Amino acid sequence: MEIELELVQAASPVIAIHGGAGTPAYGPERAATVTAGLEAALAAGWEVLASGGRAVEAAAAAVASMETSERFNAGRGAIPTTAGTVELDAAVMDGASGAAAGICAATWPDNPVLTALALADSVGAGALERARTGQLVEMPLLLDSVSADAFARRAGLAARAVHGGPARAPLSPNGTVGAVALDRAGHVAAATSTGGRHGQPPGRVGDTPIVGAGTWAEDRTAAVSGTGIGEAFMLSGFGHRVAWCRERGDALDAAVRDGLDEVVRWGGDGGAVAVTPQGQVVLAFNTPRMARGWRTAERSATALDRATASA
Amino acid sequence: MEIELELVQAASPVIAIHGGAGTPAYGPERAATVTAGLEAALAAGWEVLASGGRAVEAAAAAVASMETSERFNAGRGAIPTTAGTVELDAAVMDGASGAAAGICAATWPDNPVLTALALADSVGAGALERARTGQLVEMPLLLDSVSADAFARRAGLAARAVHGGPARAPLSPNGTVGAVALDRAGHVAAATSTGGRHGQPPGRVGDTPIVGAGTWAEDRTAAVSGTGIGEAFMLSGFGHRVAWCRERGDALDAAVRDGLDEVVRWGGDGGAVAVTPQGQVVLAFNTPRMARGWRTAERSATALDRATASA
Repeated sequence: MEIELELVQAASPVIAIHGGAGTPAYGPERAATVTAGLEAALAAGWEVLASGGRAVEAAAAAVASMETSERFNAGRGAIPTTAGTVELDAAVMDGASGAAAGICAATWPDNPVLTALALADSVGAGALERARTGQLVEMPLLLDSVSADAFARRAGLAARAVHGGPARAPLSPNGTVGAVALDRAGHVAAATSTGGRHGQPPGRVGDTPIVGAGTWAEDRTAAVSGTGIGEAFMLSGFGHRVAWCRERGDALDAAVRDGLDEVVRWGGDGGAVAVTPQGQVVLAFNTPRMARGWRTAERSATALDRATASA
Repeated sequence: MEIELELVQAASPVIAIHGGAGTPAYGPERAATVTAGLEAALAAGWEVLASGGRAVEAAAAAVASMETSERFNAGRGAIPTTAGTVELDAAVMDGASGAAAGICAATWPDNPVLTALALADSVGAGALERARTGQLVEMPLLLDSVSADAFARRAGLAARAVHGGPARAPLSPNGTVGAVALDRAGHVAAATSTGGRHGQPPGRVGDTPIVGAGTWAEDRTAAVSGTGIGEAFMLSGFGHRVAWCRERGDALDAAVRDGLDEVVRWGGDGGAVAVTPQGQVVLAFNTPRMARGWRTAERSATALDRATASA
């Protein structure tokens, strides 16, 4: 399907989010519920940015809001695998420092994106220097399932039962969620979270927690969060591809188009949100619809379907 | 450290392997043991190619030989995590079809690369078509730890205890192992396998099983297998980066140099072997040494150190 792409030259700071591509058509009730979820996520991310917080905290806060809302296939709303297990994938990347972390097949956190953030922050800005002197501590991808307790201690979090708390809302959750943000200091960041594909076997991991696939952020290029057929996003190296196109001089919209074209070459489709340190925001998808939104100090918008109805 | 790079214009078919970069200096006994392991792996891969087998089978056979030898940090020779667990990562990619599979944190197979091969072959050449019609079955990354039994059945393999069989040799194993191959039909493939970093916590996953990071193969660009600081190979998108350089017209040696430079930018070092459908082979590393070798019908070579001794 043709790419629908919105390019916004926004003021700084700004946050943009998606709530999944590839979802079925919305009825009025579901549209209202998902839109409210998007607006709450924009508000959560905006609150961080407006108070001078870091882009990576804002992106994670927006994603955490959607994880908690039970309206999306992530965190507390995650759909089960064919074995009935719930396996959560999430990643964050801080474009200011390059600190990144992903966790996959996590079975215990309500907000895996906050666990990823805690891990990325434990790496910190000195990570590259430590790496150069053999003191590497980064773990861009951690299999949480095999070390939930140890990891929770490491991340300073208390391990909790999966989906503890109130009963889940009787709602078929929307897709993967993600956010990109640009903060007042001019740094970008990305965060993504998912419960995986509908009908996936236990143990399957898609692009979401893979830094360079579904999640990428570096100030010199862009921050991007993807949603769609995870296998194709992995094989296309979607996040890295967008960054490389930027590196060679492509504008953000051209870079995202190139990335989505590569996803199609690998048999998939989907969408993404992206932002540059210069305040350009792109929301793009080649599926029938993608839940999405963005917000600055003066403007805010959400949408679910294509601007022009398609077959 | 400066990149040491060997470029060979080989006849087809050809296989090239590595047995890890970043290892300590070899004494005579260890050098002989590791060299014998490399020669056995080249022989195993060559046997497949000489009989007209597929490149992906040859690459997997060479890697499986090193996994079984207990001389390398992969398969039966894998080093334990800080928790004493053994967690195996491996991936294969078939450049003819684009079929790829990785498994990570696997706790049961002696030869995780053969499990990855079985999974990739179960995907097959029709994968992209099936993906386009919503019948996606690819799982480029599978967390084996959570579904060893189910996965073994799926892959047609019998689940086995970790490191069952004879006692392990009293040898400090060498590094990550990998192979690239070009078959008579002109197709390339890559395979990589590892037990992870020395001193890694349980659950840490590096670049090896990530398709596009430590492992990549596509006939239109190249096949490549990496070894080194996994976090930096992931953040640099090493495999995708080599492919992307080839796509823009770089020669294989320039593409591998660019990929290793990007690894350095992300704070790491390491090496790689690569091959093109045109029979160009590259063996390159920016570490003090990398165990490596290559073989055609008429020529065979192995090496452990730099050609010129360095500080």
